[in-house]
Order: sequence, then C-alpha cells, then structure tokens
Amino acid sequence: MAGPGGFGLRDDAAVVSLRPDEDLVVTVDALVEGVHFFPDDPPEAIAVKALGVNLSDLAAKAAEPTGFLLALALHDRHPAEWLARFAEGLRAAAEMHGCPLLGGDTVRTPGPLTLSITAFGTVPRGRMLPRTGAQPGDLIYVSGTIGDAALGLTLRLNDDPPALGSILRAGMQAEDLAHLGDRYLRPRPRLALRGALRDHAHAGMDVSDGLVGDLRKMLRVARVGGSIDTARIPLSAAAQHAVAIDRRAFETAVTGGDDYEILATVAPDHALLFERAAAEAGERVTRIGQVLAGSDEVLFHDLSGSSLTFDRGSFQHF
Amino acid sequence: MAGPGGFGLRDDAAVVSLRPDEDLVVTVDALVEGVHFFPDDPPEAIAVKALGVNLSDLAAKAAEPTGFLLALALHDRHPAEWLARFAEGLRAAAEMHGCPLLGGDTVRTPGPLTLSITAFGTVPRGRMLPRTGAQPGDLIYVSGTIGDAALGLTLRLNDDPPALGSILRAGMQAEDLAHLGDRYLRPRPRLALRGALRDHAHAGMDVSDGLVGDLRKMLRVARVGGSIDTARIPLSAAAQHAVAIDRRAFETAVTGGDDYEILATVAPDHALLFERAAAEAGERVTRIGQVLAGSDEVLFHDLSGSSLTFDRGSFQHF
Repeated sequence: MAGPGGFGLRDDAAVVSLRPDEDLVVTVDALVEGVHFFPDDPPEAIAVKALGVNLSDLAAKAAEPTGFLLALALHDRHPAEWLARFAEGLRAAAEMHGCPLLGGDTVRTPGPLTLSITAFGTVPRGRMLPRTGAQPGDLIYVSGTIGDAALGLTLRLNDDPPALGSILRAGMQAEDLAHLGDRYLRPRPRLALRGALRDHAHAGMDVSDGLVGDLRKMLRVARVGGSIDTARIPLSAAAQHAVAIDRRAFETAVTGGDDYEILATVAPDHALLFERAAAEAGERVTRIGQVLAGSDEVLFHDLSGSSLTFDRGSFQHF
Repeated sequence: MAGPGGFGLRDDAAVVSLRPDEDLVVTVDALVEGVHFFPDDPPEAIAVKALGVNLSDLAAKAAEPTGFLLALALHDRHPAEWLARFAEGLRAAAEMHGCPLLGGDTVRTPGPLTLSITAFGTVPRGRMLPRTGAQPGDLIYVSGTIGDAALGLTLRLNDDPPALGSILRAGMQAEDLAHLGDRYLRPRPRLALRGALRDHAHAGMDVSDGLVGDLRKMLRVARVGGSIDTARIPLSAAAQHAVAIDRRAFETAVTGGDDYEILATVAPDHALLFERAAAEAGERVTRIGQVLAGSDEVLFHDLSGSSLTFDRGSFQHF
C-alpha cells in the first residue's frame, strides 16, 4: 500500500483503534470515469463525490466517520495539476467531515480513472443501523430532497428520457440549473442525522440508485411491503420547476440515482422524536409512506389514490 | 455498497468488532487488468492474486486476517462463467486464509477489469509491525525465495530485458517453467510468519515491487542504510537454473516485482529465536544482510566483496 503523492503515508497498512464499547462500520464504493462522473468534471468535485458517496453509507448506518483508504487507478493523461487539485479537494472534504485519509494505493491504468474508497466509522457496540430492520407499521422517511442529482445528470445528457435534458435546459432558470448541476457533482452526506437515526430508526440505507428501487430493496430484505404517497416525496424548488416544465422529470427524479439521501423506517411512537432530533441536527426529513405487512410489494399512489408504476425500477448509470 | 453476485451480502456496510486488547490493521491494494495480471489469466488465479497481495501486507504487519471488502469494476466482456469462476476462486482463497468477504461494490467499467481489496487484520494492541522500525545492527531477513514471480512474468514477455523471456523458455525444463509461471499467478501470503514477526522483528514490509527497491524504501524511512550479501538472496531451483542460462535473470529476480515475500529486520539477539519460530511455522527465512548506521544507502556486494549496482532500482509493472 502506497499513499497517493503528497499524503506522506509510508507504511503498508494503517492501524484503527476502537474503544471497547464501539464497533467499526466499514463500507466500500467504487467510481469509474465515464460511468459515475464525467471526464471533465472538476477534480475537486470528483474527490468530493468519491468520499461523499462512502460517507453517505456511513451516515445511513448511524456511524461516525473515522477515516478512509483510497485506491486510485490513474491513467497517463492525468497531469500533475489534475492530481494536485484532486488531492486538495479530497483533503478539504476529509477535513470538513473529520475523516482523515489513512492510506491508499495508487496504480496505473490504461483505462478510465477508477477510484475506490473504503470508509471507516464507529457506532456504539451492536448499534449499526441495519438495512434489514423495517417493521410493519413503521413510518418511512427520506432526508433532504430527491431527484436533484438525477435531474442534474439529465441536464448534461439528451437521450434518457428523450430530449428531456434539452427541454429542461431551455426552460429553466440559471439558478435552478446550477442547483441541480451542483447536486449531481457534490453529494452531501447526511452525517448530521447520525444521532437521530441511531436513537429512533429501525432500518436505514442511503439512496444511491434511485428512491423507487432502493426503497424496494430495503423493504424486500425485511420481507415487508410499503405504501408511498408520491405527493409527499420532497422535491427542491428546482426539481419542482423541472416537473412543471416536463412531467417526465418526476419519474427521473424518483427513479434516478445519485441522491445520497437517507431512507429510514421509524416506529410511529418514535416519529415525533425522530423529526425533532433531525431538525435539531439541521437536517430535513420527510415522511413519505408506511411499511406494510403481508407482501413485499411497494405501492406508489398519488393524492387521488391512483397507483403509479415506473418504467425504470432503479437507476442505471449512464 | 452491494456485494458481487452470489455472495448474499445485503447491507450498505459491514461491522467489524474487536476485542479490547486488539488493534485493527487495514490495507488496500488495487489490481488492473493488463497491468497487474493478463486478461487471459484464469479468473481463479486473479482472485487468488487480488486477495493474496493484500494478505501479504497483513502478514508483513504481523496481523491475523479477519475479513475483506472487494470493489470490482467489471466490463461487459466478462461473461457470467468468468464471474462464477472468479467468485469460486475468491471463496476458496478466503476460506483457506480464514478471511471472509464482508462486503463490496460491483460497478461497470468501459475499461480494463479493476479490483480493489481492502483487507482487515488484528494485532495485539500497539503491536502492528511497522515498516519504519529498522535499527542499526539489525539483521535483514527475507522469507521464501525471491524473483520467481518476476521470472514467471518475464517468461510471458520478450522485451524486458531483451529476449530474456524467449532464451529462458527455450533453455528451461517444463517443471521450472511451471514453477515460475505459477509463482507469478498465485502469490502465497506468508501469514504463518505472523507470530515470529510479532515476537522478534523490528520492522517488516512485503516485497511487492522488487527486493532491491523495497529494501531501499524500508531502510530510507528508518534513516538507516544496509549491506546485502547478494549471494545469500534465496533463489528457487528454477530461478537458479534461469540465472545459469542467462545471468541477466539475476537482476530481473532481485529488482522485479510480485514476490509477496516478507522483508524484516531483527535484532541480533533475537535472530536465532526468529529463525526457530519461522521454522516451527513451516516458513523459510534467510538472512541476507545487516542494517547499518550513518547513511541511508544500501550496498549490494557479492562473495568477492565487489559491489553491485542495478539499472532498475525498482520494479515497473509491464
């Protein structure tokens, strides 16, 4: 294991110590140039995304980040300036989240830039929030707003759904375009929700592959179903504007990926406590539905009670 | 975090628990198709190598493996059968080393297959063997034999050094060729040396980028120098045959990479205990030199006392 240039790491391995009353939570996510980010994305943003998507997994497990390892496969086209900007972006993101780089491995690739980050976090012993813990009757919550990143990606593409990107680009205000573009580039891991989740949630996962598909995954592993009120799914003002311009933007928002918000189920008698704890942490959470017994189907219905189906169960990266 | 097919992993993260008297040792190594292995290498061997190179880092830190995470970037050319064989190879290697897959992430890449493994191990608290601990007077040991993998790689190439591969292929016995080829394909992490290293060594690292270069790295970080008796560097019978056919094979052996042996320094009064502990663990260790104060230069000399220099300080992957 050799650290990336400039980090001053000089051993084959790093040591992680725990207090006796803690468990370590470990997670890994890989990003590939041309799949998870664009080759011309700012290197700082690529660093922010690579660390952010992993910290989002820790947040969903109610874990406090303690450090990370980076495996970086670089091709020759990346000049030293690119690497310096990437390293600076990573350093700044690591500092902001209190999650230092512990080590890494840098290798050469003839192919696309590929990053893999392994993030470490701690929870009180036995208290990692599982993905599998949803119980019938639980209320279903989601953090932040849904669909911004998927719409931000759509704005950079034209073909999925057909022409939606160009229609939105032509119809939206600069401010909205900037908001959606930034949400695609720079995920914000909801680490501040950690305490609220740990104290009040039964199940948690991060929304990375689309709300609809990830919700199905979370309920299926608990062998429960759910009912979602689609009108309650929180959309940013920019996303609402997009839906007003072209209704297809709604399906993109709820099935597209890269939200890096938290999906959680909470027992009804903890709902107010959960909402209050989230508000105190400065994070928005919205109740969007309820866990149901009897099947592992997830029903989506609108205000009129009509049920909705989605062509795309889950997000496919471009 | 989603596990690769067939592993039945279903959460975003995994939990690692430690005993209060333990530290966790973490390490990551990435492998890229066409750089660290050949596209047509058997998928089982690629799995064995990906896990093995990481377990070798743990072995060099005197750590006992406890599990690993896998990030796998696959391209469309890999059929299901390839993935099944890879998974089976990984499962078998994990079982053999008592190091289970804890989780992972599988993504799509338009480029070469890229694997990154993060391995976890435990040591008694505060007892990770550092790379930096070499002290003047320490004896320098290396495990196993050096250069087999580099010669195995040379046998599959022709150009570095010029024509050496074809000269060796023409001159060597089938048994030797098979030995060297296998050592390139399937590294054997020296985990059994863990106890001997922990109890008796001052410094340890794994030899992955060539004995000459890695030795320089290990001594430089400790601000010491060393003297190496090149005649003592342990070569397998096959490597000795290669050197007898073409003297250039010696430089390839000692500067080439992929040995995944352990380099360690041991105080003279622990030398016999270290050798005995290694023998009891069924592992070969050979004293090849001594740590010197006063400079960070590493001198290589042969039986006659002549000093040797190497054109290639360290291994460059093909």
